[in-house]
Amino acid sequence: MPITVKALQKTGPDQPFRVVEIERRDPREDDVVIDIKAAGICHSDIHTVRNEWGEARFPLTVGHEIAGVVEAVGEGVTRWKVGDRVGVGCMVDSCGECEQCLAGLEQNCLRGNVGTYNSIDVDGSVTQGGYAQKVVVNERFVCRIPDALDFDVAAPLLCAGITTYSPLARWGAAEGKKVAVLGLGGLGHMGVQIAAAKGAEVTVLSRSRKKEQLAIDLGASEMLATTEDGFFEAHRGEFDLILNTISADIPVDKYLGLLKPRGVMAVVGLPPAAQELHFGPLIGGGKVLAGSNIGGIAETQEMLDFCADHHFGAVIETVGVEEVEAAYDRVVSGEVYFRAVIDTATFDEAETEAVPAA
Amino acid sequence: MPITVKALQKTGPDQPFRVVEIERRDPREDDVVIDIKAAGICHSDIHTVRNEWGEARFPLTVGHEIAGVVEAVGEGVTRWKVGDRVGVGCMVDSCGECEQCLAGLEQNCLRGNVGTYNSIDVDGSVTQGGYAQKVVVNERFVCRIPDALDFDVAAPLLCAGITTYSPLARWGAAEGKKVAVLGLGGLGHMGVQIAAAKGAEVTVLSRSRKKEQLAIDLGASEMLATTEDGFFEAHRGEFDLILNTISADIPVDKYLGLLKPRGVMAVVGLPPAAQELHFGPLIGGGKVLAGSNIGGIAETQEMLDFCADHHFGAVIETVGVEEVEAAYDRVVSGEVYFRAVIDTATFDEAETEAVPAA
Repeated sequence: MPITVKALQKTGPDQPFRVVEIERRDPREDDVVIDIKAAGICHSDIHTVRNEWGEARFPLTVGHEIAGVVEAVGEGVTRWKVGDRVGVGCMVDSCGECEQCLAGLEQNCLRGNVGTYNSIDVDGSVTQGGYAQKVVVNERFVCRIPDALDFDVAAPLLCAGITTYSPLARWGAAEGKKVAVLGLGGLGHMGVQIAAAKGAEVTVLSRSRKKEQLAIDLGASEMLATTEDGFFEAHRGEFDLILNTISADIPVDKYLGLLKPRGVMAVVGLPPAAQELHFGPLIGGGKVLAGSNIGGIAETQEMLDFCADHHFGAVIETVGVEEVEAAYDRVVSGEVYFRAVIDTATFDEAETEAVPAA
Repeated sequence: MPITVKALQKTGPDQPFRVVEIERRDPREDDVVIDIKAAGICHSDIHTVRNEWGEARFPLTVGHEIAGVVEAVGEGVTRWKVGDRVGVGCMVDSCGECEQCLAGLEQNCLRGNVGTYNSIDVDGSVTQGGYAQKVVVNERFVCRIPDALDFDVAAPLLCAGITTYSPLARWGAAEGKKVAVLGLGGLGHMGVQIAAAKGAEVTVLSRSRKKEQLAIDLGASEMLATTEDGFFEAHRGEFDLILNTISADIPVDKYLGLLKPRGVMAVVGLPPAAQELHFGPLIGGGKVLAGSNIGGIAETQEMLDFCADHHFGAVIETVGVEEVEAAYDRVVSGEVYFRAVIDTATFDEAETEAVPAA
């Protein structure tokens, strides 16, 4: 029997959020029902509901940084039991059979994975995300949240954490390496903490040094302003790895100049326009420009355990369900240091609006 | 005492080649004197003397694909003896002390390595390349040419061979991998042979299938024409590795689409203009765009031994010293399959022109 839950929904890009009741599917044999405690606000949520990334499938509930407690499990579930502290990130299903899935790279599923929201699920329905009281998810797409992490600081790890952990791990952020993190927002602040915890010497690059003390507090050794005169010449050949978390256009050639020979610039931020790149700065020194897109489920678990072992989560502020619209504006204007997380307990007192008949 | 040798020289971009006598330095303690048997014609030579890569330092002798025999050695030379079959590639010196040199990556020497021609040598002179009877080189920048390789088929390995070997080795061309080689010229024909010898399944990509039989003969399983309708859709997600050897503009995003998740496009061809690239096709699937520039000396030796062990060298035609200008035109128009190599024995009968007083 489907489960009725309160959720935040948008009916169009210019419509306000409203609290409505939506149905979660009757749990299948391999599903778990999660009582959501916290849901992070990712910039992707904003791009999606504002239709900045093509057509959203309204009415829509977004949210793919989900932390909560297992409330029920399907008959065939072997990995989870009621009461487990768990999280769900950007994917809720994949074929499980292709070479990518078998290699633990479900994000690259050759048949296409199912996104946590705004995706077509295996049953043809449009997936609805985590700005809600509960979610029903295949047990393979659930991760354990270690006891050391509170739900609210853990939720953003499911997207912002794995998005930065995966390229830092793949490209060798470690002791003896100099890592630059470009941009200090939701992604960047996780990148700094993870790279520092991995033992790398971390420099934060931004247009100004406004957040210098915050960067230091997160574990960076220094913050540099890329707009200062002679910046790109002064720091030529300095870094083993640059993690680019910003979504704006960047002078790629100049950033490649900051890398040591064989250095890597990993990009996780997605500027809408094409970037200009000469092959020369890539060829000289055998440099690498590498894309990265979240990470697989096993690696997401590894990241959660790593954060717990190193005693950090996301740096967050919590907002109630009525404050999400305002939080979006503050995220866009860069005022949130560093992640806004919805306290889903605030659904309890929220009045639901009637959903108009379709 | 300096050594006087015949060499092919240009005095300006529009001047013909002339045979002149040039001086090679008095061998230092750690130098070897090499009696040159064959010198490959690399497209870089043409770009340089035609001033297509900025100012050449005329009068200039080019050539950085050098094969010959050790004729004399300095007192301190330990690695080579008279009679050894040896080769010299694109570098003739580096600091030998920086982290890159110590790691065997002399091509990335942090103080800058000395190119085989048109570079400022440690003594302030302009280096002169291999279109000559002899060359004097620091013993660290000499490689052994295995007996199984003739001088003429070995010479191009010192540039075209290592330029393609290094990225193929670094990015894992091997059994079970699908490798595409883009362009079938001097570089591409080495890339095909090396990738096939490493056990990869090799596809050659070019604008037409004109060279299809040649590609198969070199070890490719197939040749595909990129200009055919629907090419990029039909071969989406097919390759683990693309080696781009062409120097023309390419639609980078489309080529990234040909890669499997986590696939790598290695670029060794240098188009003059900036290329357009969206980060999206790089981020989706965690793909990699990697530059590569020749290889270190140890790796160059490894490549020479690899080619000998697998019984192949460059596919060449030999030209006399009087035919180099004509050969340049044929290289540029794509008529040389696949490398022209100067038979330096033809210097013997060539008359030298007097060099005008400076």
